[in-house]
Amino acid sequence: MPEVENAQNVIALLKSLRAVRQFRPDPVPQEVVDAVLDVARWSGSASNQQSWEFVVIHNQETLRALAALEGFAAHLAGAALGIVVVMAGDQGQVEQETFDEGRVSERMMLAAAAYGVGSSIGWFKGRGRAAVKQMLGIPENKLVRTAISFGYPDEEARRARPKPAQARKPLSTLVYEERYGVRWQH
Amino acid sequence: MPEVENAQNVIALLKSLRAVRQFRPDPVPQEVVDAVLDVARWSGSASNQQSWEFVVIHNQETLRALAALEGFAAHLAGAALGIVVVMAGDQGQVEQETFDEGRVSERMMLAAAAYGVGSSIGWFKGRGRAAVKQMLGIPENKLVRTAISFGYPDEEARRARPKPAQARKPLSTLVYEERYGVRWQH
Repeated sequence: MPEVENAQNVIALLKSLRAVRQFRPDPVPQEVVDAVLDVARWSGSASNQQSWEFVVIHNQETLRALAALEGFAAHLAGAALGIVVVMAGDQGQVEQETFDEGRVSERMMLAAAAYGVGSSIGWFKGRGRAAVKQMLGIPENKLVRTAISFGYPDEEARRARPKPAQARKPLSTLVYEERYGVRWQH
Repeated sequence: MPEVENAQNVIALLKSLRAVRQFRPDPVPQEVVDAVLDVARWSGSASNQQSWEFVVIHNQETLRALAALEGFAAHLAGAALGIVVVMAGDQGQVEQETFDEGRVSERMMLAAAAYGVGSSIGWFKGRGRAAVKQMLGIPENKLVRTAISFGYPDEEARRARPKPAQARKPLSTLVYEERYGVRWQH
């Protein structure tokens, strides 16, 4: 484990990561995409299965077509690139694959954030899932639900957005001590 | 988003996170536990549902009892503390809750790692799941599978371990460009 000189910086990054859905048109440098993928590659997974593959999409036409599918991935339309996460689709491992998909997605977003690149998780549902596979030539037996948008945040669009910043529940309602129901006192 | 002066440091931390299953007996400072929980609190989730609660366990007897349950959580027995992740258990949201559980677990591990504290994901299966709920007084309708061990890594035990470091697949077998099957050329 490398010496991280300033743990507070890392904690600040971890606490500050927010979904970014409005992007500037600027491209994301290859160096950043490489770092995101390398971080994904080194993510942990149940029994080190690494049941993931990634389709990196820069083509704006493809991104717009993905954005239009059933689900919650409209933000892909304005992204500099998208990464579609392809899980193995092992029927006996759906639970672990879903958990690991969450882990690897989170790490990719954090890797991008380290370079000031924003991201958001897109989620296909219903017929959108079969459509993604058909569109990208992904075998039917794979489990495909997630596409992550990446791009530099459009701060002006964000400020103009009427929606307030997403709040979080206070720790006092989330954390118990030794036993469920015993409130955390710190 | 805070200015992270050295993106390379963050990337190094993200790439270097490995499961730690052998811990020194030293306690983990309250400051670190607080940071881990605060990072958990600020994690992203589908529709900002924050469907998680956390039971923090320092009691060594409880940790040993949890370690003995059906699943893969034996490492809890030697940990300074464990955090059991309690998801809401909404029947219509199992997939999202599982994905979000992976996201929040990953962030907690990274927060600990920023302070040099190791961690490992424990996973209950079969009858172990009902047993955890009963043991900790968690309502039956909740979804409980994950307990994360935390503690300072026992480097000597790690070096003595015959098992080699966990390898990862090369990017060339994991990444496609624009379309599944088209190998990444970078």
